Amino acid sequence: MTAAFSFRVDATDGKARTGLISTPRGDIRTPAFMPVGTAGTVKAMLPESVRATGADILLGNTYHLMLRPSAERIARLGGLHRFMNWDRPILTDSGGFQVMSLADLRKLTEEGVTFRSHVDGSRHHLSPERSMEIQRLLGSDIVMCFDECPALPADEKRVAESMRLSMRWAERSKAAFGDRPGHALFGIMQGGVTPELRAESAQKLKEIGFDGYAVGGLAVGEGQAAMFSVLDYAPGLLPADRPRYLMGVGKPDDIVGAVMRGIDMMDCVLPSRSGRTGQAWTRRGQVNIKNARHMDDPRPLDEDCTCPACRSYSRAYLHHVFRAGEIIASMLLTWHNLHYYQELMQGLREAIAAGRLDAFARAFDAQRAAGDIEPI
Amino acid sequence: MTAAFSFRVDATDGKARTGLISTPRGDIRTPAFMPVGTAGTVKAMLPESVRATGADILLGNTYHLMLRPSAERIARLGGLHRFMNWDRPILTDSGGFQVMSLADLRKLTEEGVTFRSHVDGSRHHLSPERSMEIQRLLGSDIVMCFDECPALPADEKRVAESMRLSMRWAERSKAAFGDRPGHALFGIMQGGVTPELRAESAQKLKEIGFDGYAVGGLAVGEGQAAMFSVLDYAPGLLPADRPRYLMGVGKPDDIVGAVMRGIDMMDCVLPSRSGRTGQAWTRRGQVNIKNARHMDDPRPLDEDCTCPACRSYSRAYLHHVFRAGEIIASMLLTWHNLHYYQELMQGLREAIAAGRLDAFARAFDAQRAAGDIEPI
Repeated sequence: MTAAFSFRVDATDGKARTGLISTPRGDIRTPAFMPVGTAGTVKAMLPESVRATGADILLGNTYHLMLRPSAERIARLGGLHRFMNWDRPILTDSGGFQVMSLADLRKLTEEGVTFRSHVDGSRHHLSPERSMEIQRLLGSDIVMCFDECPALPADEKRVAESMRLSMRWAERSKAAFGDRPGHALFGIMQGGVTPELRAESAQKLKEIGFDGYAVGGLAVGEGQAAMFSVLDYAPGLLPADRPRYLMGVGKPDDIVGAVMRGIDMMDCVLPSRSGRTGQAWTRRGQVNIKNARHMDDPRPLDEDCTCPACRSYSRAYLHHVFRAGEIIASMLLTWHNLHYYQELMQGLREAIAAGRLDAFARAFDAQRAAGDIEPI
Repeated sequence: MTAAFSFRVDATDGKARTGLISTPRGDIRTPAFMPVGTAGTVKAMLPESVRATGADILLGNTYHLMLRPSAERIARLGGLHRFMNWDRPILTDSGGFQVMSLADLRKLTEEGVTFRSHVDGSRHHLSPERSMEIQRLLGSDIVMCFDECPALPADEKRVAESMRLSMRWAERSKAAFGDRPGHALFGIMQGGVTPELRAESAQKLKEIGFDGYAVGGLAVGEGQAAMFSVLDYAPGLLPADRPRYLMGVGKPDDIVGAVMRGIDMMDCVLPSRSGRTGQAWTRRGQVNIKNARHMDDPRPLDEDCTCPACRSYSRAYLHHVFRAGEIIASMLLTWHNLHYYQELMQGLREAIAAGRLDAFARAFDAQRAAGDIEPI
C-alpha cells in the first residue's frame, strides 16, 4: 500500500503496455478491465465474487448514485466503498455521459446541465464543480473530469464545440478537484473521429495536467473500425507515463484491439448485462443459453473455464434456470462472463510481458473463428 | 456415510426430540429445516451458500420439475443432485399438493390426476405409480407418497373421503416404490382437524409401514391455533422411532411450536420468498427493508447475526438495493433469512440436548416481543 497514486509501465510490446497503478486502496494490474457497479452493486454479484474473478477495481456511476441513494447519504454512511462492501479502488465517471443518455428534460449551458431524474422526476444539476463534489462525497479513488460528448456520427462543428466545452470543463474540474493525495483525477480527450480535434483536445489536457487520461467519445455508435481508426493514433497523443483509459469498451475483440493500440484501462457493462440476458462469452465465441440446442447438453459453457458456472453446471441446467426465470441464471452467467473478461486481461498482461502479444491476438481470433459462435 | 437410511433419537425434552437421519448422501441433524429448491434452485442462492447457512437437506418439487425441464431430462443428465450441484440429501414432494394448488383443468379420479401445465398448457398425468417413477428419475433420497389434500376449513365428509383416497394411494405408492436401499419412502398422514380421522390415517400408514411419516394437510389455511391443536396429538400417533415431518411449515414461531410438539423435519418457502419481497426475519422480529425508516440506518439487519448480509452491509444499503430493484437485494436477504432459520434450528437442537427447551422457547418469545417488529 502506498499513500500516493502512481503508475509504472513494466513491459511494452508494440504499442501495448503492461504495468501497475498503485493507490492507497490497492494495486491495479494493467491492462485492466473494470466491472461496472452502476448503483452500488455489480448486478447479480457479491463483491467478494467480483474480486474472485480477478477484478482489481470497480467503476461506479455518479449519475445513478447521485439520484439514488444520493452522494450525501453515501458520505454519511462512510463512503461508497463501505456502502457497497468493496475496499479496493473505485473509479467513478463524472455523470456527464449518463445525464445525456438517461436523464429527462436536459438543459445544457456553459455552466453545466440541469435535468430531471429518470427515477422520480426530481430536478438536479451537474457541473464540473458539483461532479467533483459528488465524486469526493462518494470517496472515489479515480475521479473523472466532467465532460460532454455527442453520439457519433455527428456534425464536425458540433463535435468541435462540444470538445472545447469539455476542455473548459476539464480546467474547472481540475480547479475544483484541488489537491487530494492518494486520489487521482483523469482528463477525458474528446474530438470524435477527427484527428485535428483529438490533437487539440490532448494538447489542452496536457497543459492542464492530469494523473491519467481517458479516450472519451468512442463506443457511442461509430462501430469498431472507426473506433480503432481513432485508437490507431489517439493514445500516442497522451503522456506515455500516465494510464490511458478507454471509456465504455467493450466486446472481447474490442478489448484486444484497444490494448494492442496502447490502452491501459477499460470498463463496460457488457459482461454483466449479457449475463442477465442469457449471453455468455467464451474462448470459442458467444453462447446464447436461451437457445433450445442447449436443453440436453451436459457440457459446461466453456470446457476450459474454471469459473463456478463452468465447474459445476451443465448448459442444460443453465438453459433450464434461464428459461424458468431463476435468479441463479443471472448470477452464474454474470460470474462466468466477468471471469472470462478477467482471464482475457490476464492473458493480455502475460502476453505483453513475454513479448508475444501478436501470437496471443492471432490465437484469440483463430479460436473464436473455430468456435460455436451464436449470433446474439 | 452409511448405505442404508436410518434415524436415531439422541435426546428428548418433553415431546421434542433431537437426533440424526443418516443417508448415503449425508447426515441430517434433527429437528431439521429444509430450504425449498422449487425448480432446481433455492431462489437467489448458490447451493454452496445454502450449505453455508447450515442446511443438511433441500426439498425439490416434483410438480415443477416434471413440467420443466422434465424428470426424464434430469435423469439423462445424471439426476437432480448433479443437475443442481447439491450432493447432499434431497427430499422431493409427490406433486400431489402442487397439482391441486397450481395446475389448470385438473381431473381427479381414483387412478390419479390429469391436468394442464401452468407453464405451457401441456397435458400431464400424476398417479402414485407415476409420482414414484418421477421421484426415482430425479434421484430423490427421501420420496413422499402421492397424496391429495383439501384446503381447510373443509367439510368433514370431504376430508374423510380425501384422507381415505390418500391412504389407498399410500398403499399403491409403497408397492410402486419397491425396495430401494439407501432411499426412503415417507407416508403422509391426513385427516384435517378431526382427531378420529388423524388416528385412522396414522393406523393405516403404520400398517403399510414407512421409513418416516409426514403430518400433511396442515398449513393450508387453518391458522396456527388449529395447526397446534392437531400437533398436540398427531405426532404421538406416529411411530416414535421414525422421523416425523411437518410439510410446508412455517414461520419461526410455527417451527418452535412444532418442534415442541414432537416434529423432526419441516420445509417452507417463507425464508426465501420473504427475502425476495424485502422481509427479513431476525431475533427481534421482522424487518421490512422497503420501509423508509431504514434509508439512513447504518446498522445491520440484526446486530447478533453472522451472515454475510449482516456482517458487511447496512440496512441503508439493503434498503437502497431493494428500492433500486437490484438482484443483490434478493441474494442478501434470502441468505440472511436462511441463515436465521438454520440458526434457529441449531438453537432448538442444542436446547433439546441440554434439556432447556422451555427456557429457549420463552427467551425466543420474549426477544421477539421486545424487538422492532414491523408488520408485513
